[in-house]
Order: sequence, then structure tokens, then C-alpha cells
Amino acid sequence: MATAPETIWIYDTTLRDGSQREGISLSLEDKVRIARQLDRMGIPFIEGGWPGANPKDVQFFWQIREEPLTQAEIVAFCSTRRPGRTAEADPMLQPILSAGTRWVAVFGKSWDLHVTDSLKTSLDENLEMIRDTLSFFRAQGRRVIYDAEHWFDGYKANPDYALATLKAAIAGGAEWLVLCDTNGGTLPHDVQKIVQTVRQLVQSDEARDLQTAEKPAQIGIHTHNDAGTAVANALSAVMEGARMVQGTINGYGERCGNANLCSVMPNLQLKLGYRCVEPEQLATLSESSRLISEIVNLAPDDHAPYVGLSAFAHKGGIHVSAVEKNPITYEHVSPDAVGNHRRIVISDQAGISNILAKARSFGIELSKESPTCRQLLQNLKTLENEGYQFEAAEASFELLMREALGQRDSFFSVKGFHVYCQMHPDAETWSTDSQATVKITVDGQDILEAGEGNGPVSALDVALRKALRTIYPEIASFQLTDYKVRIIDGKSGTSAKTRVLVESSNGHQRWTTVGVSTNIIGASYQAVVEGLEYGLMLKHRAKLALETSSVATDS
Amino acid sequence: MATAPETIWIYDTTLRDGSQREGISLSLEDKVRIARQLDRMGIPFIEGGWPGANPKDVQFFWQIREEPLTQAEIVAFCSTRRPGRTAEADPMLQPILSAGTRWVAVFGKSWDLHVTDSLKTSLDENLEMIRDTLSFFRAQGRRVIYDAEHWFDGYKANPDYALATLKAAIAGGAEWLVLCDTNGGTLPHDVQKIVQTVRQLVQSDEARDLQTAEKPAQIGIHTHNDAGTAVANALSAVMEGARMVQGTINGYGERCGNANLCSVMPNLQLKLGYRCVEPEQLATLSESSRLISEIVNLAPDDHAPYVGLSAFAHKGGIHVSAVEKNPITYEHVSPDAVGNHRRIVISDQAGISNILAKARSFGIELSKESPTCRQLLQNLKTLENEGYQFEAAEASFELLMREALGQRDSFFSVKGFHVYCQMHPDAETWSTDSQATVKITVDGQDILEAGEGNGPVSALDVALRKALRTIYPEIASFQLTDYKVRIIDGKSGTSAKTRVLVESSNGHQRWTTVGVSTNIIGASYQAVVEGLEYGLMLKHRAKLALETSSVATDS
Repeated sequence: MATAPETIWIYDTTLRDGSQREGISLSLEDKVRIARQLDRMGIPFIEGGWPGANPKDVQFFWQIREEPLTQAEIVAFCSTRRPGRTAEADPMLQPILSAGTRWVAVFGKSWDLHVTDSLKTSLDENLEMIRDTLSFFRAQGRRVIYDAEHWFDGYKANPDYALATLKAAIAGGAEWLVLCDTNGGTLPHDVQKIVQTVRQLVQSDEARDLQTAEKPAQIGIHTHNDAGTAVANALSAVMEGARMVQGTINGYGERCGNANLCSVMPNLQLKLGYRCVEPEQLATLSESSRLISEIVNLAPDDHAPYVGLSAFAHKGGIHVSAVEKNPITYEHVSPDAVGNHRRIVISDQAGISNILAKARSFGIELSKESPTCRQLLQNLKTLENEGYQFEAAEASFELLMREALGQRDSFFSVKGFHVYCQMHPDAETWSTDSQATVKITVDGQDILEAGEGNGPVSALDVALRKALRTIYPEIASFQLTDYKVRIIDGKSGTSAKTRVLVESSNGHQRWTTVGVSTNIIGASYQAVVEGLEYGLMLKHRAKLALETSSVATDS
Repeated sequence: MATAPETIWIYDTTLRDGSQREGISLSLEDKVRIARQLDRMGIPFIEGGWPGANPKDVQFFWQIREEPLTQAEIVAFCSTRRPGRTAEADPMLQPILSAGTRWVAVFGKSWDLHVTDSLKTSLDENLEMIRDTLSFFRAQGRRVIYDAEHWFDGYKANPDYALATLKAAIAGGAEWLVLCDTNGGTLPHDVQKIVQTVRQLVQSDEARDLQTAEKPAQIGIHTHNDAGTAVANALSAVMEGARMVQGTINGYGERCGNANLCSVMPNLQLKLGYRCVEPEQLATLSESSRLISEIVNLAPDDHAPYVGLSAFAHKGGIHVSAVEKNPITYEHVSPDAVGNHRRIVISDQAGISNILAKARSFGIELSKESPTCRQLLQNLKTLENEGYQFEAAEASFELLMREALGQRDSFFSVKGFHVYCQMHPDAETWSTDSQATVKITVDGQDILEAGEGNGPVSALDVALRKALRTIYPEIASFQLTDYKVRIIDGKSGTSAKTRVLVESSNGHQRWTTVGVSTNIIGASYQAVVEGLEYGLMLKHRAKLALETSSVATDS
């Protein structure tokens, strides 16, 4: 008889601990958008912030009350009351009540050293601060999560005292005891041993006697990645009985970050047989990871487990055919389960089967036996030897493939260009002036245009667009969205070869093209021209497809 | 009585498995530079590549034989022989011998499914391929490491067969049995259980009977990060008896990367009491991590455990003084142990001490109380905000500091320059033409010169040297030795800001300067001009020092 999988309660702290990462600064709107996405993902607890710590956090709780989430509980976070007064008399706790959440997370000290050195109070007063703060919130009808700060270091320094703080939390009415590895340096085997001890405590008669909540307290885990083992630490704790995991999307957090929920959740659900969210919610994980990285304005990590662009990328020539035939031999889980995709990468280790797989993804028919196929592989190796790289420039590779097959549309050709830069010292700073002229041919007609910009490449881009816009008005919607430069053999100094990657967009699609030259302007020019050409091709093919389908409907 | 810590043999595969990461493309020179750095770090095994797989790998082994490393063993990597012939008759194995290494790493199949589906041979023939290939290398005087590909998945699918492949490797003379989690999806508790079984095998009578090497085979571990637990998996294996860990610097590798040696090594050495390298070598870890990220031209991960810029970052405010008083309360290890630094975010105090330390290293006297010191800090922050970075451009920082102190020598000033590029289609390729004119003033005298090169920056560099060489003949010995470009805010497309780093040399000293501009030519110009200026300053100071000492001798 199959039993239902046990639930692990996921507690997201992207909005609080995650936003401590250097470089993240969330607006109120950002926080609301992230909360809604977490809610859609089925995450049951979302830590919203510390009401009272700053005006933005207060507003956030108001906003969420006006347009409530569908299933998630928003949790207000705060510390235990200050020493030497009652919780009721500590004004710091009032905004927490005003936030109007059902759940409150209170953090307190577990490490004796921090009590005496940082709080500058007695060990007994700290215990009373924990118990009193929790009781206060319970009396106000709140449900309470207790975060034991510096738990693992505290336990190692003074196990009896550390356990006494948890007993105070149980006595105060905590439903969850969350063990925090605040400094992030604990390793999985230590987590395992220490969680075992806590499990013995929560199952003990002593705990039952102290308990004031309806149910016995359960264990939660909150880890940081300073030893590179945050995810493994969380799994270790779950395997010893923890039933809540705190973490952040994409592992954002102070220093080296928090446990990455985008790794924790699939590990728990796809490998260890627990339930975190519904399978169809887990299948939005990759999209959610990317969306949230957009909102916080950090480039997504292409190499992130499960959700990264490269997480299911296959490169070696040998095994591409094998992976298509029998994915489990080369993939630890199905990319669909986390909403990711298998990707075949083009590189100089590529074989024929990579080229065929790519052709299929471009919608190009190509047979293994065709001489074009072998010719393409040869071209690819020659170009990569010259410094081209198509892994990240699939649009250029598609153009190359279509050219080999005589399927590359010709929209324009460039007869030549000039670029002119001038710098002269102004009163204070240097001013820059770049101009470009370009001559192109479209349908036998020569067009000469000039443009200017704050650098030679943008001047060239402007001139090209001006020359093309009358004949191809769709070019108005194209944008250069990213520009990368890499010097390939830096040791040749300024005569080194340069590889330029340009990302373009037409508002709903993005594509990347590549150029290589010893002249950085020449390399940029190639990539910019191919970017325009690829965009025109997309438009052209969309138009053709529309015509074909309307013909079909007519007949 | 204290016992000496047990050694864990670190096996670096940055040059082979690491270079499989999308976006990494190593030149021969890159590979040699990385190998030398790994050697300096005290890493005992460096996998150099698969000789014969491509011309670059063959050249690499030649190059290393000509200028041998000081302590590391370079290992040649290859697969077992092909089915249906003897190892001696398989020409694929010849280049491995020609590579001339003492050690060879041979990988073979552990998973029955891969044998039948991918190798398309019988299970028995695969066992013979393993034994025969290893015996062949042993007979040729090589020492052999056996990499058991897909070990963990293979063991789960068919434990008896998987163990039989290891027995074949023992019979073939393997000194190391490296268990590879090729698909990267295994979790630490499974690694632990499965390594236990292998330990039982290597300690068994059966293994002793099969053994043809001098010593019983030892266990190694090779993990990938597809579940986000590569580091924890490696630690798990070591705690069950593995004595070799394979991984890469910065965790580079296919898909989600390999076990990050920059996390594995400090975890083993600082937390688990093993020995990997000398403590003073471990203290170069952060520098090595950054240097290698520069060589492969990937931005370093600021949030990487141990070695990231943010790994020991503390927010300003309450705990800054606490952390300085008693670091262990907020830091899991001492940053010095891995060559990293504590960083206080938004704190003038830390900034000032940085500046003082830098001044000392430049031989500049600067007092903490001087207003210049505070002014410099302010300048530094403004410039870093604009995109400058002085960590890798100390020469520019020294010029900045000397300027603030009125100690910057003036050798020349630039009144302006023009750069002109033209591209026109030739019969086959595009030809490039770049010319520059520059006007400078030296001692009140204007000099106008022109230069040409195969790109705008080299044209500018040529023109500047021509203008300066009559007055400063020493400029003939200066060379641009490296040139790096990074786009700072790529999302602005070609209007993005560009940071250029230029490394210059006078034959016995090297220095790096930086320039930032939205115009790549402007940024390059700044860095090139400061590079020349710094070189002239070095020469000038050397001359002064010589005069002073000869005056001293005269008196």
C-alpha cells in the first residue's frame, strides 16, 4: 500500500534574508511581484520583512492585506524583546502586530557568547526574553515560528544552554523551532548529529510538559552557503526529522547566500519522495527562478542546478544521439519536471549528431548522409579555430547553416563603412565624438547613410538602421539588448583578436550573434549586421507562415 | 599525542572537465598559465587533457615537458580501448604514451546500460577493455588512475556488474579507483552508502588476490553539481575513506559544474582536519581563484564560499566592532587562512585602513589623519561607482594616489586625438585599415604624429609611441602585454560602459592600468596613456635612486 508522501513546509525568505545580498535593492512593487510569484509556486510561508525596520516593509504588509495571496501565509519577522522590560512594554513589537499576519517569526540568541557580548544581558534574561516574546504574540492570537540564531555554533559552544533556549521557545508556544546556521560554516554530518539531539528534545516528556501550543513543536532548518553545503545541510536536517526548510529563490542572501530553494525543492520532491508543492507548480520552477532574477535585476546563473540554462545542456559529440534515445542515461531528472529544457550545445567537440539535433531545433531538414552536413562540421571547426564561438550565438550558427543549404535570405549587403572618433580635452573631462558612414545595397539600389553615437559601434549601428529603415520598417522594433567583448589572445596586446557577442530583441524574441576580428570595430560590425539580418529573417518567415496558413484556410 | 593529519590527494581537472563549461575556450597559453598556478598552489595531480583529441592538447603536453612543473604530476586522460581489438593494436592509445606523463587516467564504463547501448559491446568485453587498457599502460611503465564513469547510477542499476568493473581495474593495475557521479544527481547520503561498499571491496581478500599494482587501490571521488551538492558529496566520500578528490577551480565544468576545489580544500583542511596542501599554499586560494577566472575570462563569483569578494563581508553598524573584537562569533573560518579579506561594507574605517595598507605597499608615506587620505577614499568610491576597478590595476591606483599627494610626475600631456577606421570588402575577406593621429605636449613643445595598426587601439598606441620616442627613448622597451575588455552594464547594448585593462611591460617589470568610458576607444586610450606614464615614472625613479646612491658613494 502506497502512503502519501510526507510534506516538507517550504519557508521562503527571499524578501528578507535574500534581499541582504549586496546589489539587491527591492522596491515595494518588486516585493509584491515576488510574493505573488512565490504564492503561485505554492510556497506555503513567505517571510515579508521586519515591520517597523523601514517604511517599505510596513507598506508591504498593508499592500498584501489589501490584495491577499491565494494560499501562502505572509510572515512578519522580528527579534525577541529587548532586555529589562516586558514584551508588552517593548514598542518594537507593536508594528509586528499592526502588520496583521497570522504568523510571526521571532529570532533569538542560542549562543551564550552572543547573549553576553552582543545583547549584553544575562543568560537567564535571554531565556525569559524568548519565552515572554513568544507568549506575548500567542496571547495576541498569533501563531509563532521561533528562529534559533547561531544555533549550530551555539550548540557546539554550550549544548546545555542552547537546548535551554529551545525549551524557552517551547514554553512560549512556538509551533516551529528553526535551527539557523547563521554563520554558514556547518557541514552536513554535524547538522545531522545536532538535529538528532533536537529531535530527542522535542519528543521528550520534558518538552510535552513545557508545551503551551496545541501541538508539539516541529523542527525547521535555515542554512547559509559559506562552506558550499547549504543545500546538503538542509537535506541532512530533513532526513533527521526537520519538516520546514527556510531558503531563498536562487540562493540569494548575505555573503555566500542562503540555501537555494530552486535546488532544495526538486531534491526533496523528485529524489527523496517528500512533497513540497504540486508537481505542476514544481514545473514552473525554472520560469520562477528567471522571473525573480529579472525582478531583482541580477543576471541569472546559467549553471544553477535544475533551473540554469545550462543545467541540461549536452556538449560532447559522442553522447548526443544517446541522450535523445534514452535520456535517463545522461540526465539525473527530467528537465520537464522543473520546467527546464534539454539543450544541445554547438562547439568544436561537436559531432554530426549535434549538428543534426541543432538543425531540427531550427526547423531545418538535414540528413546525416548529406555532404552539406560534413561540410558544416568542417566549417564549424575552422571558424572555432579562428576564434568564433557559437555556443552562445545560435542565431549566427543558424545563418551559417542556412547559408550552407542555400536557404539564407539576402536582405541587404554592405559595401563598406567608415568610422571616425575624436577625443579632445574639455575644461574638466574628455569629450567623445563618434561618427560612422555606411554604404549598403538593397535590391540593386545603393544607400549611403551617416550616424553618430557615444562610441564607434553605436554610431555604426545608428547609421545601419537609418539606411535600412525605409525598406524594412520593422527594424524600428529591433534593439541591441546586450553586448559582450572578449579578447581571445590577450597576450598579443592591442593586436589581439576580439570576439564580440551581440544580443538583439524585437520585443518578444531574443537572439545572439557573434563577430571576430583583430579590429574590435570589425568584430562588432559583423555581429551587429548578423543581428539585423537574423531579425529580418524572423519577420520574413513569420510573414510567410501567416500567408501559407491563410492560403490553407482559403482553400 | 597528536598524529599527523591524513593526506587527501587533490586532482584538478580544470583543464579538461572544467573547460567543458559553456563559454570557456582555452588557448595553449591559457592552459600553461593555469597549470603553473595549480602547481604553485601545491595541487599534486593536474589533468592536462586528452592527447590526440585535438592538436592543442598534444601541444600542451609538449610544452609542459619542455618547462616542467615544480611538484605537480601532469596526467594524460583517455578512454579504455575500443571493443574488438587489443589495447596494443588501438592507435587511439598511442598519443597518450607520446604525451610522456608518468600518470595516465583511463575512464571506463560502470553502467551496464551504457556498455550495451553506447559502446554497443558485451558486458564481458567491457571488463576486458578495462583490464587490458590498464595492463597496457602499466606494461609501458605508467601509473594508472581508473575513472569509473557513471559509477553511482551504474551501481544503483546493477551493483554486481558495477563492482565487477572495479575488479577489472584492480586486476589491470589501477592505483586509484575514482568513483564518478557523471550525471551529477547523487545526494550525499547515497554517496556515503555506496562508497562504504567500495571500501569493503578494496579491503577484501578478493581485491588482494586480483591486485597487480604494488599497493592496494585507493578510492577517489569525482562529483558534479547537478543537485547542488557536489562539494558535500565529495566530503561524504572522504569521510567514508576516499583519499583523492577530483574537482575544478571555481567549480567550472559542464552543465552545473564540477566539485569546486575552492570549497572542497578549505572544508577538508580547515574543518575536517585533513591535509591537502601546505597552509601557506591554502592562503593563496582566493588569489588563485581570481587569477584563473581572469585567465578564462569569466567574471569571478563574488558570492563564492571562502574565495568570493563577499564571502567575509560584514554590514556596517552593530556588529562591525564585535567582529573585529571577536571574529569567530561572526566568521566560520579566518579569511586569512584562504587568502581572503574581511570586508566591512559601507564603512569609511575599513576603507582608510585599506588605503594606508596600499600606500605602504607603494612606498608612499601617508598618515591616517591626513585630509588627503579621506579625500582619496572619496575619489576611490566615486570612481568605483563609475565602473573603475583598481584591484587588478594597481598602477592606475598608484598614479591616483601620487596625484592626490602632488607627487605625480608629468611627462607629457595629450591635447587630442583622432582615430579613423575603414572597412571595405575585398575579393574574399574584409580588410581593415585603422589610422590615428595624436597631438601631445612635452615641455611646452607640441608634437603631432600619426600611426596605423590593425585596429583603432593599436593605431593609437603606435602614434603615441612615435610622438614620445625622441624625448623618452626608453619607451622602445615598453610593450603592451595584455589587453582585456569588460562591458560593465551589458544591458545598455552598444551604449554600455566599457572597462579596459592594459598590462604593460618594460622587459623586467609588469604593471596594469585601467580606463572606463562609454566609448571603447576612449577607455583604451586612458589605459594605454597611463601605462606609458607609469613606465616612464618607473624609469625616472630608478634613475633618481641611482643618482642618489652614486652621490652617497661620492661623498
